[in-house]
Amino acid sequence: MNQSNPNPFPLNATLIENLIKENNLNLCSISIRELNRLVDKLSEKCSVEFLRFEFGIPGLIANRMGPEEEIRILKENPSLPSTYPPFDGVPRLKKATALFCKKFMNIDVQPENCLPTVGAMHGCFISQAISARRGENANTILFLDPGFPVNKLQAKFLGLNVKSVDLYNYRGEKLIDKLEKLFSTGTIGGVIWSSPNNPSWICLKGKELKGIGELLTKYDVIGIEDIAYFGMDFRYDYSVPGSPPYQPTVATYTDNYFIIISSSKIFSYAGQRVAVTIISPELMNKKYSYLKTYFNTDKVGNAFIHGGLYTTTAGVAQTPQIALASYFEAASNGQYDFLSELKIYAERAKKAKKIFLKYGFNLAYSKDMEEQISDGFYFTIKREGFNSDTLLYHMLRFGLAGIPLNTTGSTIEGVRICVSLIRSDQFEELEFRVRELNSFLIN
Amino acid sequence: MNQSNPNPFPLNATLIENLIKENNLNLCSISIRELNRLVDKLSEKCSVEFLRFEFGIPGLIANRMGPEEEIRILKENPSLPSTYPPFDGVPRLKKATALFCKKFMNIDVQPENCLPTVGAMHGCFISQAISARRGENANTILFLDPGFPVNKLQAKFLGLNVKSVDLYNYRGEKLIDKLEKLFSTGTIGGVIWSSPNNPSWICLKGKELKGIGELLTKYDVIGIEDIAYFGMDFRYDYSVPGSPPYQPTVATYTDNYFIIISSSKIFSYAGQRVAVTIISPELMNKKYSYLKTYFNTDKVGNAFIHGGLYTTTAGVAQTPQIALASYFEAASNGQYDFLSELKIYAERAKKAKKIFLKYGFNLAYSKDMEEQISDGFYFTIKREGFNSDTLLYHMLRFGLAGIPLNTTGSTIEGVRICVSLIRSDQFEELEFRVRELNSFLIN
Repeated sequence: MNQSNPNPFPLNATLIENLIKENNLNLCSISIRELNRLVDKLSEKCSVEFLRFEFGIPGLIANRMGPEEEIRILKENPSLPSTYPPFDGVPRLKKATALFCKKFMNIDVQPENCLPTVGAMHGCFISQAISARRGENANTILFLDPGFPVNKLQAKFLGLNVKSVDLYNYRGEKLIDKLEKLFSTGTIGGVIWSSPNNPSWICLKGKELKGIGELLTKYDVIGIEDIAYFGMDFRYDYSVPGSPPYQPTVATYTDNYFIIISSSKIFSYAGQRVAVTIISPELMNKKYSYLKTYFNTDKVGNAFIHGGLYTTTAGVAQTPQIALASYFEAASNGQYDFLSELKIYAERAKKAKKIFLKYGFNLAYSKDMEEQISDGFYFTIKREGFNSDTLLYHMLRFGLAGIPLNTTGSTIEGVRICVSLIRSDQFEELEFRVRELNSFLIN
Repeated sequence: MNQSNPNPFPLNATLIENLIKENNLNLCSISIRELNRLVDKLSEKCSVEFLRFEFGIPGLIANRMGPEEEIRILKENPSLPSTYPPFDGVPRLKKATALFCKKFMNIDVQPENCLPTVGAMHGCFISQAISARRGENANTILFLDPGFPVNKLQAKFLGLNVKSVDLYNYRGEKLIDKLEKLFSTGTIGGVIWSSPNNPSWICLKGKELKGIGELLTKYDVIGIEDIAYFGMDFRYDYSVPGSPPYQPTVATYTDNYFIIISSSKIFSYAGQRVAVTIISPELMNKKYSYLKTYFNTDKVGNAFIHGGLYTTTAGVAQTPQIALASYFEAASNGQYDFLSELKIYAERAKKAKKIFLKYGFNLAYSKDMEEQISDGFYFTIKREGFNSDTLLYHMLRFGLAGIPLNTTGSTIEGVRICVSLIRSDQFEELEFRVRELNSFLIN
């Protein structure tokens, strides 16, 4: 890429403003897809290849194990595509998930507790529906923000109430105190978080998860733990199956959990839409009569399977389930070190952060309790005096895209940077653009 | 199968009663899955192979075209499984669907109007959600019954009201009059039907569809037309692409439609969970401000794609979309006569009906307006003096399973028979069992 000669930046302001207006957009509330399209158009009109930090998608090619296993099954079992999948999932994947949970989280669940879904999105959707429909008043989902905006759209689709706590302001005991205050109102049905967190890359500590877990039990709230970035807090080596340290999970501290593990990021298998939700054995058998209003059953497990999985998609495509099973099996048996492949993201984050910090930016979320924030899939930047939208606007003028933090439920003004797509040959260009942007902003 | 010597029928009544009680079942309200499990257990305990007329699943092996295309793509495009599918579907499938619609229904839609879903279930789920959330008062889904019970569970999940009209009592002008009465209350957001109908195999006539279509337009109600059994009214030859007769559709008469076409039955591709919803070009762009309450947008098309497909599953697995595209393409180009393969179901239905009618049973739904009901995937039986549940109970004692009609919203007492799984070598056994059952009931 040699777009620096002649220097096209800053891109024409009128052109950008017009594109924003023509498409009825607002950088304060823009969705990821709208931003993608805006950047596509800008890129085309200006003949500039953007650095696409706004996409939160895998930047690696999936290990061939998964596709090869799908191919094998499609060849050897001609009746499989004709057969409805069991609504509660293909037995091989259920078994492999339980093994993976034991080996990498050290928790004990049975295959029957492991329910395949059409991506983590599907798991979060049904988990929210059940958590906030167990009692008439406990119809609010609490979000530990910042977070993935679409999870809040799911609550909206479901007609649920939403509350938010920003992890920037609440960590450690302060977080637990805040949660207890909210849980004690009796209005919270479920609390949802991702750890590592999208977009801030905050990772909840064991003592925080313990505190949350105890409160979940005490107030009968369900924890929805979305571990899309399983094991990717690279400050710790979670890569050895059956050996500590283990991926921290609230399941160690409560029976009131749904855990969601997706193939999209850890196995770069986003295209085949497959994930699993793990329901604790105790929660699976719990009964709430109010569930009947929506699911024709009072039992959590039945509500998930027959009231949720069946009514939304009637299960998950057969062969992608087999692909995910093969990844879980190989990871659990120590044959496939999936985390070593993913470390490249941390390396990219380290290099990219360095550049932004060098030219007048700061990390929006810089601390993870007493530690520095980890390097991984995402990080967040801010700049003195700039709101999320104006910062993004100026970045766009210099061929840089990212997600405005205010769309993630954050109380901080800044932009999310996803490093998954940046290539090693682009860091020089990145430095050039950030330096130019900095000069522009300080002059 | 030579279970007739010695004759094990009727199976032990106490054993059946106990199994029903132990599992907390009620034959009046039993779900398909519960019935499957009950029959499995009965079959095992009595060492009798049941004739499984209760499953509504394909009985054929999918043409290899689909799996081969999935295999080809998985081999040739290693980055595809790593790439999120577009939420509105893979372009090739969108284009193939529009072509298929033109060739087999003679309707004009664009690829952008064709939205892949995770099976027809997913399409019906989102279609109901949108239809009944366009206005605060129009929050009722009207079912043209009998129907697939899970569609009503979907309405329940969505918190929608449900009303029902039984096609047994209302056909032709009577149906149209009844619908107008209901539509004019302003409470109906959508009306859902399948034609050919599951379980009755009723096929709505062109003049009925015209009447419905005109009312949909007049009262701004959305028609949700689930054509799971596309082209399978074998009284008419719908198999020639681009030539009449065409599969009848309400789309010929209104712009207010969602059409749902599934790969499960017509291509026997149930296992890979892929279908399409076709939204009329006009409806796609219609705006209703109340939609914003649930979907963050007032536009029907956006609500379906970003509010519905994105929030529930973030799209459909990549390679199954390609498989379905290959079927649609081959069918539309005249290279693959998918309907000729499916005629076997009609032949089975004809033979099985004859046996039931010979031994004191009648068809529950026997007429299709002035015509005899068509032979296809399902038919319905009844018997003087028997309720749905008692009829099923006695059938079970003779190794015959089926779905009690009262669970389908029918006002008729009877049982649904699905012929998809019966093999040609089983008809003799079927006749033996039905004859024995008849003797038992009349003595």
